[in-house]
Order: sequence, then structure tokens, then C-alpha cells
Amino acid sequence: MTRVANELRRDYLLNRWVVIATERKRRPTDFVQKTAERVKVVDCPFCPENEHMTPPATLVYLSKNGQIIKDKDDDGFRHKNWIIRCVPNLYPAFTPPKAGLRRFEKSKAFGHHEVIIESPIHDEHPGQARISQLIHVLNAYLDRLTEFSKKSYVKYVSIFRNHKREAGASLSHAHTQIIATSIIPQLIKEELKASKRFWKRNTKCIFCEIIKRERKSSRFIFENEKFIAFTPWASLNPFEFWVFPKEHQTSLLEMRKDSLKMFAETLRICLGALRNLLNDPPYNFGFHIAPCDNQTYYFYHWHLEVYPKLAIWAGFEKSTGIYINVIPPEDAASSLREYAKKEMERLAVKS
Amino acid sequence: MTRVANELRRDYLLNRWVVIATERKRRPTDFVQKTAERVKVVDCPFCPENEHMTPPATLVYLSKNGQIIKDKDDDGFRHKNWIIRCVPNLYPAFTPPKAGLRRFEKSKAFGHHEVIIESPIHDEHPGQARISQLIHVLNAYLDRLTEFSKKSYVKYVSIFRNHKREAGASLSHAHTQIIATSIIPQLIKEELKASKRFWKRNTKCIFCEIIKRERKSSRFIFENEKFIAFTPWASLNPFEFWVFPKEHQTSLLEMRKDSLKMFAETLRICLGALRNLLNDPPYNFGFHIAPCDNQTYYFYHWHLEVYPKLAIWAGFEKSTGIYINVIPPEDAASSLREYAKKEMERLAVKS
Repeated sequence: MTRVANELRRDYLLNRWVVIATERKRRPTDFVQKTAERVKVVDCPFCPENEHMTPPATLVYLSKNGQIIKDKDDDGFRHKNWIIRCVPNLYPAFTPPKAGLRRFEKSKAFGHHEVIIESPIHDEHPGQARISQLIHVLNAYLDRLTEFSKKSYVKYVSIFRNHKREAGASLSHAHTQIIATSIIPQLIKEELKASKRFWKRNTKCIFCEIIKRERKSSRFIFENEKFIAFTPWASLNPFEFWVFPKEHQTSLLEMRKDSLKMFAETLRICLGALRNLLNDPPYNFGFHIAPCDNQTYYFYHWHLEVYPKLAIWAGFEKSTGIYINVIPPEDAASSLREYAKKEMERLAVKS
Repeated sequence: MTRVANELRRDYLLNRWVVIATERKRRPTDFVQKTAERVKVVDCPFCPENEHMTPPATLVYLSKNGQIIKDKDDDGFRHKNWIIRCVPNLYPAFTPPKAGLRRFEKSKAFGHHEVIIESPIHDEHPGQARISQLIHVLNAYLDRLTEFSKKSYVKYVSIFRNHKREAGASLSHAHTQIIATSIIPQLIKEELKASKRFWKRNTKCIFCEIIKRERKSSRFIFENEKFIAFTPWASLNPFEFWVFPKEHQTSLLEMRKDSLKMFAETLRICLGALRNLLNDPPYNFGFHIAPCDNQTYYFYHWHLEVYPKLAIWAGFEKSTGIYINVIPPEDAASSLREYAKKEMERLAVKS
């Protein structure tokens, strides 16, 4: 048996290293989740009829005569029969500054923290949702992002999703979280710095170049006219994948309305592939977008990063910042690609 | 009820931010672990009599006529009645380059990955170990660190510990891991950069200054003549604490033999306090030491960081690098300080 040395890989942009630990020879089947007993959900605060269990909605989508109407709740009033519902997080990590405060203290965590309830159906998660519903979800992302981006004290907006308890979700109802912050996150700053440097040297977007390369690589998973998904070269997590718009866009806000359906389809197929390949594993996803601090970020390219939660970052990772990933991204892509094809066929039959 | 805005804190050295989320008002008792049913350990490869289940030891401590003798195993031979035992990790993240290889390819994960079995007693973990045994453990750290530091392809040595399955430990027998790498970890590089800059400006060690300040702060936990423990200002994890030598030393290797007992006592008391306060929670610890690449790092100050595993880093943390910690380090220190006192009394009675 030949002993193959593990491979050390650096991220496309960041000084972030990962050991692709092929020695452990783990296969996708090693990560298939056990089917948990179905727990009956009682008193889910995000389910219809329990609207009074949350603060008033900051945004609801209602269907009236086939049209989507947007509204919000009042203190004593809650909309029923909603399609999408956004509410403040009960335990916000970031809160708006008090009125009358002239200078915002840098040490306070100013911002907003909301939950986007993705569907009235408890478990209509993106990997199995109706495309029509996913389009509503994406529209809600854009609506809240637009709203938060206007606030003078907001510099960045993070849209992220935690799926299942093991990935940090405290409620199982399909939902996304959105946090608006008064600082630009360090991870985004580093991506901005590296992509700006690349643009200055090459008058090109580094992400556009990465897309071009990965489209033809063994890490490719799925593409349609507008979007592409692949496992990144230096994946930190087993089965991690990234989704990019093929057009050069700095923020989600630049996404044209006619691309929404394509993006919904991409999410449905890629998250559906992950779901079916590994029996509904826990995962996190997070959007990386340009900040909203009135600077221009022409050199940046927004994208979505999906991190399945199948390994534990332990003492080595936490005290060095070097990661160990036991599934080569090429193997992960090969499995995900196969399952994405099946999802495409399933969707084609439906429509 | 006054709503207090959460606090945003930056690390002493790094561009790493944490939200101290006081709004959630979590108390230490919220983190006390449930007592798990005691699982009978069968065929533990690290227990005495099972030495043949591991590769040959690279180092064993044996007691002969009251003296500690150091030796190692051979292919067909395993020492019995050992006090400490170091063996190669069966699934190494880093492996030595093959003999005859002149240039080390940068893309290979060259190095070493070993396990230090801390005691013949299955569950003699540092929070409850005999001081005499802990001194052997520390000596073994120094022996392996010395050995790895000599290799031309080794630039950094990480010594870390994963306690319990939830914190990434695959075996429950008391053990530490040691990974020697051919790169300097990014996290260490950033600490080196910041501490070098501070030294150049102030001709002082930034860590020595931090120790001076934290000794008198509400984050202080414990000190003896040679060591100090406190919860860091921008703790990422609930109940996180750091241990520093009070003398300015760049690496563990500079620790004088007469300090070993003091360090063992510090570990025993602080990890014992964590153990008793929260009913044996999972945790990781990792040493931060100067690299061994033949450069001088006079401006650096080695230390140990202990990360209890009581929260999940989810979509927000992973896609921004901003952390949310629901226990203010001042509250954590207050509880740990109280329990450290109890541990000191217990140890005093024993000796």
C-alpha cells in the first residue's frame, strides 16, 4: 500500500490553510446521517396560528387575488395567512442605537438581527421547497437587505442559515437569519483586500477567474445560465460548496429580478443534492457580499458559501487556524454532481 | 427593564471581534453539563496491556528504582508498566517527508502527528490528576517539542488537547496531541506580527502588559509565583481562559525545570475549577508558542488557551469571523475564581 502524503492547500484569496487528509480514506457514505426519530413539533413560534409568540413582523408577504402584497404587523396586531414573515430575533446579537444618540459608540454592537420565516410549512427547507416559495424567500432577503443598507450605522449585512440543532439552529422551522452590523467583518475585509489587489494588478475580477477555472475542474457541481456551484479548492469542511453568479456583481442587490428563478433553482438543486446524498445533514450557509458603507467595491463578487457540519473543529484548528478536512473537494464534487443531476431530472418532471 | 446594548470587543492583538451578548442573560448554571451514563471502556488502545494496539511508542517513561528512565518501543516490542507513552497518530494529519527527498514540496503536509498518553489510568485527566503525574506529562511535552524542533522541515509545533467527544476527542483515555508542521500557522503569524510591532514601538512585550492589567481586572482567575490565569477581554467562548508564565518566555522550551511543578499546579487548579463548576464540560486547549524556524522571536510570549465547548459556531461566525459569546468573561472569571479557590484548598489538604 502506497502511503500518500496529505496535501496542504491555501485558499484562493485568504492566508487560510487546510490539510486535505486523504490518508484517512473517508468515503461519502461515512458521512450519511442516521435518520432521527421524527419529533412532533408543538408550539412552534414560527408556525401559522402562533404569530403572537413572536414580536410584530417587520415584513409580511400576503397573497391577495394572486398578487403579493407587502405589509407589517403592529404591536397588538398580527397578520395571518402570510407567505413569508420577518420578525426581530428575540435574543438579538446586534441592536439599533437609541434615538437621540448622536455619536455611535464603537464598542456597542449596533445593528439589527432578524429572522426570515421562509414558509408557513414547518419543514419547507430550501433543499426540498417549491421553487415559487424559494423566489419569495429570495425577495424577502432583498427587501430586508435594501432596508438595512439604508441605515447610516449599518456597514455590512450578513444573511445566513443554520440547519438543524447540530449546526446551531434552536428552532427547526425553516428560517434564515439576517444580521446588520456597524463593522465590516474581518473575513470580508480580507477578501476585499485580496480581490482589490488582484484587480489593480490584472484589471480583472479574481472571482471571475476562479469561476472560469473551476467550471472546467473536477470540483464543478452544477451550472445554469446565470449561476454556478463548485467545491472550493481549499474546502475547510467535508462537502463544502460555493455558489456564484456568473455575471460580475458585487452585491445580492445587483441581482436582476429575472435571475431570481435561476438562483432559486440553483439553491434547490444543490441543497437538495446535499440533502439526498447525506440524508439531510446539518449545515450552515452564509452570503458574502460587498459592504454597504457607501464605498465602491467594483472588484468584489458576491457569493454564497455552504458549510455542511460533519466534523468538529478541535484544539488544533482553534489554536492554529489550520484546518483538517478528511474529504478531498474533488471527491465531494463527484458525489454532489451525481445527486444534482438526479435533482434536475426530478424538477424537470415536476414542471 | 433597561435594555443594555450588547458589547463589541476586539482581541488584544488580532483583528478578531466578539459580541458579548449580555441581552441573553445566561448564567453559569445554564451551562452545567448533564451527567452522562458511565460507559464501560472496552479495549481502549491507550490502556495498559493493550500496547500492541498502537504503533511502537516513540517515547516511554518507565520508573526504575524510583528513577524515571526514558526509552522507546521497537517494531515487535512494547514496553509495559509505563508512566507516559507517546505514539504516532494512526491517522496523521502531517507526515514526515520520505528519505532522499531533497526539496520539500510546499504543497505536502510534512511534519509529525503524535499522541501523548498522559497516564496509565484511563481517566486521569489534568483537572483531577496527581501533580506528580502532570509533571511527567509536561516533561513529555518538552521532550517531544525538543525532538520535533530539531527537524529541518519543522517550523512550528502545536500541542493541543481535545476533551470529550463533543470537543473532537475520538478516544476517552486522557491524552494530548502534538502536531509538527512545515508552515507557521496564520493565527500565530498574526500574533507575532502584532507583538513585534508593539515591541518596536514600546520596547516592551504586549503580553507582559496584558498580564499586568488583567492581574488587577475582574477577569483574573488564579496566580502563583510563576503563572497566571484569566479570562481574556474578548473571549470567543463561554468560560474561555488563558494561562501565561509571568516571566517573559517565548517558548515552552524556555520553561525552567523548577517551574514545572507550578505549571502543573496551575493546570490542575484551573482545569479542575472548570470541571467542577460545569460538571466536566468538553473543552479544547492549545499552546501558542514561538516557531522553531531558527528566527528569533524575543517579542513573543508563550501561553496556553483553553476553549470550553459550550456553544456552536454557526452561519454568522463562519461567514463573517465575528463571534457571539453569551457569557461575559467577567462573569465567567468570577465563577472560575471561586472554584479555583476550592481547588487550592483541596490540594493544600492533600499535600
